Amino acid sequence: MQNLTIDGDRLWQTIMETAAFGATSDGGIRRLTLSQEDKQMRDWFRAQCEALGCTVTVDTVGNMFALRPGRNADALPIAIGSHLDTQPTGGKFDGILGVLAGLEVFRALHATGYETEQPLVLVNWTNEEGSRFAPAMLGSGVHAGVFDRDFADSRTDIDGVSFGQAIDEIGYRGQTPIGSTRFAAMFELHIEQGPILEREGIDIGIVTGVQAMRWYDLTITGQEAHAGSTPMDMRHDALVDAAKILLAAQEAARELGGLATTGQLAIASPSRNVIPGRVTISLDLRHEHDEELERLEGEVVSFIEQCCGDRAELRTIWNSPAVRFDPSCLDAIRAGAHQSGVSTREIVSGAGHDSVYVSKVTPTAMIFVPCKDGLSHNPAESATQSQCAQGAQVLMNAILSYASVEIR
Amino acid sequence: MQNLTIDGDRLWQTIMETAAFGATSDGGIRRLTLSQEDKQMRDWFRAQCEALGCTVTVDTVGNMFALRPGRNADALPIAIGSHLDTQPTGGKFDGILGVLAGLEVFRALHATGYETEQPLVLVNWTNEEGSRFAPAMLGSGVHAGVFDRDFADSRTDIDGVSFGQAIDEIGYRGQTPIGSTRFAAMFELHIEQGPILEREGIDIGIVTGVQAMRWYDLTITGQEAHAGSTPMDMRHDALVDAAKILLAAQEAARELGGLATTGQLAIASPSRNVIPGRVTISLDLRHEHDEELERLEGEVVSFIEQCCGDRAELRTIWNSPAVRFDPSCLDAIRAGAHQSGVSTREIVSGAGHDSVYVSKVTPTAMIFVPCKDGLSHNPAESATQSQCAQGAQVLMNAILSYASVEIR
Repeated sequence: MQNLTIDGDRLWQTIMETAAFGATSDGGIRRLTLSQEDKQMRDWFRAQCEALGCTVTVDTVGNMFALRPGRNADALPIAIGSHLDTQPTGGKFDGILGVLAGLEVFRALHATGYETEQPLVLVNWTNEEGSRFAPAMLGSGVHAGVFDRDFADSRTDIDGVSFGQAIDEIGYRGQTPIGSTRFAAMFELHIEQGPILEREGIDIGIVTGVQAMRWYDLTITGQEAHAGSTPMDMRHDALVDAAKILLAAQEAARELGGLATTGQLAIASPSRNVIPGRVTISLDLRHEHDEELERLEGEVVSFIEQCCGDRAELRTIWNSPAVRFDPSCLDAIRAGAHQSGVSTREIVSGAGHDSVYVSKVTPTAMIFVPCKDGLSHNPAESATQSQCAQGAQVLMNAILSYASVEIR
Repeated sequence: MQNLTIDGDRLWQTIMETAAFGATSDGGIRRLTLSQEDKQMRDWFRAQCEALGCTVTVDTVGNMFALRPGRNADALPIAIGSHLDTQPTGGKFDGILGVLAGLEVFRALHATGYETEQPLVLVNWTNEEGSRFAPAMLGSGVHAGVFDRDFADSRTDIDGVSFGQAIDEIGYRGQTPIGSTRFAAMFELHIEQGPILEREGIDIGIVTGVQAMRWYDLTITGQEAHAGSTPMDMRHDALVDAAKILLAAQEAARELGGLATTGQLAIASPSRNVIPGRVTISLDLRHEHDEELERLEGEVVSFIEQCCGDRAELRTIWNSPAVRFDPSCLDAIRAGAHQSGVSTREIVSGAGHDSVYVSKVTPTAMIFVPCKDGLSHNPAESATQSQCAQGAQVLMNAILSYASVEIR
């Protein structure tokens, strides 16, 4: 393995240059999937890859594959992938860093004329964010066989425009059959979207997997009554029950090393001087291990029963088991980080990523870099030039390390 | 004092007959202040009083006074008063019982030809509910000098119609100057709107006063963050703080014998997988004694400071001191209840009533009867025929008892 280095300045300038596609006045980016801004970004991306001698193919849901040939044309390519779309009030790094760091890897290899044994492929997955067309991670999900193409085409945005119409409008319905582009492995670099690496002063997160997550809606029925004339011990206050339950879920998550969040709470017919009679809350429970998430759910369910009996109704609306990334990919990232001399820790992703679906069909792993205050999906989302450069260097090292192992 | 009795059947039939004015299909009444339904009810009320030989005058905010002459034309009249308007989804008893029981007292006196020493006056206060024109208790408030007439006229409903326009439209702007109708005392019969009498099996509540109440809005600022990637110990979850505070307020109210209610809660930009960054809750604190309410507020404020420091902002939006009803009026009610042989307990009203404002200018007290499940402001609001009859009988007894004391 040669001691190849990426160009941190060039990567940073590329991030800032392409931030113009969908730039918002507050320093963020609004580049919704299959919008005109997304088309601008895709056209630019294709042109840059072609300038490096890559062949760019597009599948029928718009996933873009830039192939850099290797010495062995018969070997499966090693992939680098992430996404170029953003949230409506997105930032400059979420997803984008992973693709542009891959481009920087290709540029660095190109500049030195370095030829890998296996081909490399750089992927832009369509509609990772899911904010224009739900669900999220749609392009990688179709690629991995989680969703079919008709399902993707039928998704509509808030104005009633379908995914199928939108992709045809911007001319990014390609000819490459779904799933026909196979990889030996995929690596994804991403900002952490959480505060752990920054708080601990760690350069690189070696992402060993993605947490198990379950989403619930909980409705509690009490009895509406007058706030002034109902004694405290004669009340059935649904909001009080909801408050106790959401705090108990937090407590159970702390004890079991998981996460519990209530992000939504609605009182039916709220009035300042009426004791709430019906309250609905969301509950988001996560844990690194499926069996621990099961325990966490069990503790929450038992508290709800004890608190409300049959006055509570808990509905599970989403259930996503834990994902473990590929050991040999993780070894390649460890080796790549060691070679760079950066500090590392293992970390489990709390958010979903294209890698979750890709890992179903391909050995996959991820690399995290810190981001300021753990913020993402926000114009203030931020990472430093040196953090981005370190991530890109580890990404390149990992690819080359993985390649060298493969050909041994 | 003669042993006069009201006619419980006639009272019940009158309640059911007038429930037609604004009747809703679910058995409730929608009779908004100064609406056509309110005009129908007012016309009916005026005709019934005039049929008993009363003179009905109307002041410039629509308060109606039906005067039944006494032997001594120079004595101030003893008043019975409540209201005939309802909530948008109101029931058959709230306010209505107090006016129609007064009418039944007049009918019973009329039937036996009984002449009191002092005149009696039966009052229908305009806009007690405050649901078409805020604030509540507007007519009695103008009468007592709490609000002025221009303020009342300028109130607008949700369609932009002013109180002044509405009163002119239904022809209930009278000539009697505000406050010129003075009373020796006023008695108001009302349903409890709470569960205490029913649960304890008590017939009559002797209402010694109205609780002190304060309304607040509390805004808590935390930090929005990703529900999946922010560890529990790195969160600033504004909803968790709000839940702790509302439970602490409940706990403090229990300890101090007061009431605490949160009826409204709003998360800024709620999302299922985002830790809430800003939450606003309402807080309604009540206590029988002003100084204990002060202590309750102190405990809540100190908990908020301890929990949130300067991330919380508490604004007081309404402050109503405790009201103590007149001892001689209360004695008259006690005597009247004793004469009827009903069971009684002293009770403090948790809700506001016309009597709160009238008590500022006239000796005043109230009588409560139980209502089913403590429900009010609801089509299911209910009291039995015998409960209504007992209340009306105690009301008559109290008037006559008060009159006999006065002339001694």
